[in-house]
Amino acid sequence: MDADRFARAALSRVVEPCDAEVHTLVRTVGAVETLERVRAGAGRLARFRARVTALDTKRDLDIAAKVGARVVVPGDDEWPERLDSIPVPPWCLWVRGPLDLAETVERSVAVVGSRTATAYGEQLAADLSAGLARRGWAVVSGAAFGIDGAAHRGALAVDGATVAVLAGGVERPYPSRHAALLTRIAADGLVVSEVAPGSAPMKTRFLSRNRLIAGMTRGTVVVEADLRSGSRNTVKHAIEAGRPVGAVPGPVTSMTSAGCHQEIREARAVLVTSVDEVIDLIGDIGADACEPARAPSRPEDDLPPVDTVVLDAVPFRSGLTLDAIVRSSAHAPLTVRAALGRLERLGLVAESAGTWRKRPQRRSG
Amino acid sequence: MDADRFARAALSRVVEPCDAEVHTLVRTVGAVETLERVRAGAGRLARFRARVTALDTKRDLDIAAKVGARVVVPGDDEWPERLDSIPVPPWCLWVRGPLDLAETVERSVAVVGSRTATAYGEQLAADLSAGLARRGWAVVSGAAFGIDGAAHRGALAVDGATVAVLAGGVERPYPSRHAALLTRIAADGLVVSEVAPGSAPMKTRFLSRNRLIAGMTRGTVVVEADLRSGSRNTVKHAIEAGRPVGAVPGPVTSMTSAGCHQEIREARAVLVTSVDEVIDLIGDIGADACEPARAPSRPEDDLPPVDTVVLDAVPFRSGLTLDAIVRSSAHAPLTVRAALGRLERLGLVAESAGTWRKRPQRRSG
Repeated sequence: MDADRFARAALSRVVEPCDAEVHTLVRTVGAVETLERVRAGAGRLARFRARVTALDTKRDLDIAAKVGARVVVPGDDEWPERLDSIPVPPWCLWVRGPLDLAETVERSVAVVGSRTATAYGEQLAADLSAGLARRGWAVVSGAAFGIDGAAHRGALAVDGATVAVLAGGVERPYPSRHAALLTRIAADGLVVSEVAPGSAPMKTRFLSRNRLIAGMTRGTVVVEADLRSGSRNTVKHAIEAGRPVGAVPGPVTSMTSAGCHQEIREARAVLVTSVDEVIDLIGDIGADACEPARAPSRPEDDLPPVDTVVLDAVPFRSGLTLDAIVRSSAHAPLTVRAALGRLERLGLVAESAGTWRKRPQRRSG
Repeated sequence: MDADRFARAALSRVVEPCDAEVHTLVRTVGAVETLERVRAGAGRLARFRARVTALDTKRDLDIAAKVGARVVVPGDDEWPERLDSIPVPPWCLWVRGPLDLAETVERSVAVVGSRTATAYGEQLAADLSAGLARRGWAVVSGAAFGIDGAAHRGALAVDGATVAVLAGGVERPYPSRHAALLTRIAADGLVVSEVAPGSAPMKTRFLSRNRLIAGMTRGTVVVEADLRSGSRNTVKHAIEAGRPVGAVPGPVTSMTSAGCHQEIREARAVLVTSVDEVIDLIGDIGADACEPARAPSRPEDDLPPVDTVVLDAVPFRSGLTLDAIVRSSAHAPLTVRAALGRLERLGLVAESAGTWRKRPQRRSG
């Protein structure tokens, strides 16, 4: 293993993600020299002393090897280019699974939301993710209970690509009740973390993990979020990274949609209701744009104004004479007669024994 | 009755609302001279001949008197000033009920939506309207089945002011199954129409009626609307009149919310979920503004970053020594000790026999 990769693997065990000071060091002197200085522990770097003492990167790499995880670093073919543009990129990524990370996230959407989701939210997360996966989009999420789990499962159900980004080491299933799901994702998709094997999923690591979910995808969709949901932190990161954000509405009586509604109200997210609208928001302009939802068209939709008035004046049940229609519509007899002719040709009205009535229309949809 | 009022009452029987040609005439030569010319029926005005023949304004005024309706015209104290700023104001308004129309709509909101509403939508319409009425806002709607009816009922339930604007004459309850509701509104609120007694509620009159609902209120809220709902026409009129529009979201699986979602997506309406948010949108800036919905605050919300990391490292169940917390948090021992002191004073952690653990927090809300 080359020295840069080894140093980054070590840093991912010792230094918390998003440590601004160490980030500046890595950018300035490189990962190898940074690790040296962290080991030496001079000045403010003394705060890592306890962790440096416990550091055993060979053991971490052995653990990774046992679960088939590799270390991906900037410059690798598999490194997601998008991560170079976020404020503090990860030192490295620990990656489990058969897919190429860079290729997979090139066309990917983050689908995230509350752990305490409703049946409505989970169903939608699964449906949206399945639909996105079927259209060739990878679904990236955080493997949590609720929306995250449903999103991964929706993609897996249609043999789509899905990526779980964890807050702890890639070897430890978290939450543990998602062990089987994570095994399946590692077998068919990708399980990713920026912290070394053996690292516990601590609260601050969830927050930094969220920036990776937002940072490696083209855009983020929040399916259900209460006001305090961690997924709103993912939204914040997506906005900071300049990525589009969608939010799915729900009943205003459901507190698990309140966070989504507020993101929409405050114009941080666009309201989305379907796979098409998600792709319209996040995909390439033009290639992926969708038509706005429209009701099916009817023959009477595009009538000239006078024909609408005349049609309006013709009853369904008992027929009306031309004179009666003239009185009711307040148009001249010749105008009314011409309109009735056009309406008859469209199959909207029929004449019988000198009186006119509407013809029932078959409704499509 | 003065000549202008009489002429306008007559015009409201003969000429359809929104007739651009007659509107220009009224503005140019006044209502009395316009009625003369319509009666004479020269040129294009010949199209009113059948209706002029049948015209009997005295009879219409008698019908109105029987149901206690008055004719309100521009310049009256009771005339809603806002109607002077819409593209084609009504010739006059036929008004039934004990309230002063101008005063009532000064602080009013249109609450509209689908006739084929769901239980969710009707409940919300009633709750929003009751809440608005309690805060001194009059609720204006169209007395239709579904959302409209629920809106009127919600306002009446709390003895609030409500105004029903009809597409036909004020003497004929439409829809007829809302006869009791309309009797109640006429007794406690106001029933209003721009067409004379005896006029049938025709399709085009519903469309012009919608412009009055949008035009006499400060703003419009759509509670539920399918893609083809007439309430979207009310939204269009509100936007044209420069009035704010709110739309209530719902499940994306409900077609009766699809119209609301599309108005929000296309930025014609602002997403609203509560009475506060409606008043924030429609009321006076400042006086009526609301705070964004926020989760209740917790002591751990505003900690300095280092305290968050340290708190994160302290377990709930088994205590940890200072050394272990130092290792886990990657901060210097003195820094960690100071943070633990602050957290202890906030009641978030406790020490016992040289180890630290988190204290359970009572959750408000």
